[in-house]
Amino acid sequence: MIFADLNSDLGESYGAYTIGADDEIIPLVSSVNIACGWHAGDPLVMQKAVALAKRYGVSIGAHPGYPDLMGFGRRNMNASPAEIKAYIQYQVGALSAFCRAAGVRLHHVKPHGAMYNMAGADIKLARAVAEAVAEIDDKLVLLALSGSEMIRAANEIGLPCASEVFADRHYEEDGSLRARSKPDSVIHDEEECIARVLRMVTEGKVKAVTGRDIAIRADSICVHGDTPEAIRFIRRIRDTLTENGAAIKPF
Amino acid sequence: MIFADLNSDLGESYGAYTIGADDEIIPLVSSVNIACGWHAGDPLVMQKAVALAKRYGVSIGAHPGYPDLMGFGRRNMNASPAEIKAYIQYQVGALSAFCRAAGVRLHHVKPHGAMYNMAGADIKLARAVAEAVAEIDDKLVLLALSGSEMIRAANEIGLPCASEVFADRHYEEDGSLRARSKPDSVIHDEEECIARVLRMVTEGKVKAVTGRDIAIRADSICVHGDTPEAIRFIRRIRDTLTENGAAIKPF
Amino acid sequence: MIFADLNSDLGESYGAYTIGADDEIIPLVSSVNIACGWHAGDPLVMQKAVALAKRYGVSIGAHPGYPDLMGFGRRNMNASPAEIKAYIQYQVGALSAFCRAAGVRLHHVKPHGAMYNMAGADIKLARAVAEAVAEIDDKLVLLALSGSEMIRAANEIGLPCASEVFADRHYEEDGSLRARSKPDSVIHDEEECIARVLRMVTEGKVKAVTGRDIAIRADSICVHGDTPEAIRFIRRIRDTLTENGAAIKPF
Amino acid sequence: MIFADLNSDLGESYGAYTIGADDEIIPLVSSVNIACGWHAGDPLVMQKAVALAKRYGVSIGAHPGYPDLMGFGRRNMNASPAEIKAYIQYQVGALSAFCRAAGVRLHHVKPHGAMYNMAGADIKLARAVAEAVAEIDDKLVLLALSGSEMIRAANEIGLPCASEVFADRHYEEDGSLRARSKPDSVIHDEEECIARVLRMVTEGKVKAVTGRDIAIRADSICVHGDTPEAIRFIRRIRDTLTENGAAIKPF
Repeated sequence: MIFADLNSDLGESYGAYTIGADDEIIPLVSSVNIACGWHAGDPLVMQKAVALAKRYGVSIGAHPGYPDLMGFGRRNMNASPAEIKAYIQYQVGALSAFCRAAGVRLHHVKPHGAMYNMAGADIKLARAVAEAVAEIDDKLVLLALSGSEMIRAANEIGLPCASEVFADRHYEEDGSLRARSKPDSVIHDEEECIARVLRMVTEGKVKAVTGRDIAIRADSICVHGDTPEAIRFIRRIRDTLTENGAAIKPF
Repeated sequence: MIFADLNSDLGESYGAYTIGADDEIIPLVSSVNIACGWHAGDPLVMQKAVALAKRYGVSIGAHPGYPDLMGFGRRNMNASPAEIKAYIQYQVGALSAFCRAAGVRLHHVKPHGAMYNMAGADIKLARAVAEAVAEIDDKLVLLALSGSEMIRAANEIGLPCASEVFADRHYEEDGSLRARSKPDSVIHDEEECIARVLRMVTEGKVKAVTGRDIAIRADSICVHGDTPEAIRFIRRIRDTLTENGAAIKPF
Repeated sequence: MIFADLNSDLGESYGAYTIGADDEIIPLVSSVNIACGWHAGDPLVMQKAVALAKRYGVSIGAHPGYPDLMGFGRRNMNASPAEIKAYIQYQVGALSAFCRAAGVRLHHVKPHGAMYNMAGADIKLARAVAEAVAEIDDKLVLLALSGSEMIRAANEIGLPCASEVFADRHYEEDGSLRARSKPDSVIHDEEECIARVLRMVTEGKVKAVTGRDIAIRADSICVHGDTPEAIRFIRRIRDTLTENGAAIKPF
Repeated sequence: MIFADLNSDLGESYGAYTIGADDEIIPLVSSVNIACGWHAGDPLVMQKAVALAKRYGVSIGAHPGYPDLMGFGRRNMNASPAEIKAYIQYQVGALSAFCRAAGVRLHHVKPHGAMYNMAGADIKLARAVAEAVAEIDDKLVLLALSGSEMIRAANEIGLPCASEVFADRHYEEDGSLRARSKPDSVIHDEEECIARVLRMVTEGKVKAVTGRDIAIRADSICVHGDTPEAIRFIRRIRDTLTENGAAIKPF
């Protein structure tokens, strides 16, 4: 039996501001990453997202980011490894409290946005992330870009980790995500995206942007539910995976 | 044997900004309340304060406050009970993470500033505070103003609590703290302050502002270490208590 | 000829978060109040709102609020008159810069949310608001609740002011807005709302919640455009006013 | 007659947090750069700093920075030129309001910390800075690192600018500041620092880190007053300059 996890970022609303259709996307995924109040989310939003995840029985992850609400955590910040480590522990701890209050388990941690990208490419930051998680609870799983420095850092210290892939993004031959600043970074054809996901999950392979097949580990597929089209796309991925014998469940 | 606890607010620095002489005060007290990044403190400051508390073996408490860094959490805010509950869980969780990373136990929670005052006088807010703490861990102790609604709320749900007194403040006959806006709220004579502390601890009594003796519970004495005079004053309280047979240890 | 102004709060989006349909509402009103980055809005949003106001030729006002993005500036905060004065000058100055850069004039200032309510009822805060505005430019108009302490404070120092009324709210006999916490504070019947607006504008009268007619000054009607129904309602107010001989233009 | 300006960053306190001895340094300098509430400063602090500058008759500049209070604006942030432009206009406008309220003129703008460094080295950001200032008031002076891209950008659009030098820093042969990450970036010998300042001001020359003389424009010397030693050092620079015929006055 092959297993596939679908994960989505949730709980990104803030005060009077709403982002995302959490209620609609949660029945479709097996894992969620909940924002922790720095780049998005606030305590009431976190509390509600945890309750929603509990109701649907999906795995709960913390989704810490940079202290940049104005930029939604998407802007690179020159924070030191020590700062990033402390920022992650702070945010993971905050989400943990809502999990404990709700009687559910915190399952994983996935850095957000610019922190995800920077720590994915810089081993010093990656080690800071892995250590931050391991020091809190060495059974927490680090969810990170397949083939990234964060996966390497988790493996170095024996922290459980899961490799994330993207349905609509091209990969370089070394398994790294092709930068958005380069041509051919995003795949727009929906059929192709779905076929790629299926192959990554069932064969562990994907065609790199150069056209050559590479090995890729796909423990979890990141999906977004911002638009009705996106929701429909998630349904198609689910259907295709299950029709081809893969069970959707948390990594 | 009589026991007395001395507690102090710590970890109130923020980024490039320093407040308080944490290093000097911590050897003198038995419990500390560490700011959690909202009205004061940041993740690196919290981490350092936890390490300091661990080194000196003092009890660690979370010191959550309103989201008002500009006002240092001292301004009343009309937050709802549900908001206050979530705010406290968020902040207590954040500090917990640094405790877990350092391998020490979080021992108590003491709301800060305006939140302390408002929840001390309003049973709805007080219940929100007590529930927030109990839902995270019903062995955590709520440290609150002696005779306040927070003590009442903790007792209602069986949450452990400790009653805090102030050396330099007058009390009304009903045991409530005399408001700073009224005359005779603060006691300026150092000898009198120390004599009052001793009597509160050893006899459980204090002379109210009206001149009449009232019963008061003094599980912990709140001390501040902002100035050299304040540090000296703490030493005098310590010495007086120990000379009179009271041992300084956490509640 | 009778004139009526319709004003609306605008520029309340923040970073990745969107609130309000600024593009749809601006053609329907004659004045806008632009959030200044504290309770809502950010520099890019402010810049865009000023450009939009310039394109449609509506009067531009600053809409300063409390430093409470998480609460959207709707929670009472115990800020001192000196703090409120400085907070308003800061925010009005910030919006002024975008007006100057766009080559348009800043026309008025209307405090937001809890600041509007608190300063409307407390003469000390009201004077702080009026002085804040007058010190920056004594030709700026203070837009405030009809009959409020802010109108009184503006009159005391000769600051131009304009009285704002609400279509769907009841008034007490003394001309103050009936508190939302009391019954009968909001009028749900759309026909009645429109008839009341027309009468306030053309006769300067409104039926108080007690049933008795009172005098009311209606220099400007506050309208919201959050929903399609709200947009439709604004159109009906516009049409009714113009059909009855009132011209929609800035106060 | 030769003129020399001494400028210092001021108004960096925030709420209950104090940084800098504004009262002590202001009598010693001819220009101040006042933080605008993002990386440091708050409205009351800005108001007070403007009043202090007015009392001592020093030139007032705005000192805008990144939205990073926790990092004191010292961490690089990947903000776009459009964002930086809007951020500067927001902050300059905010400070302008306090100047107008105090009846004094805003004289210049100097970006802070990481924004100063990034815009000094990147012509796109530099142009965003220069345009931000020029759009508000094309008589404002941009104070920037001597030889930097900001000086170039100001010259491109005819914005007045002033070149800033540092007493204790080495320069590369191309006139750029030697990076702190490299050896020999900071000069620790006080006599040498003072001799260098004098030569930069009177001869327009400085010895680069390579040992070769280069031309340098020194309209203003940046001084810091964080410690008693720093204050004493400023006095020595002042005395040396005036003894050698240079008058200390604003650029």
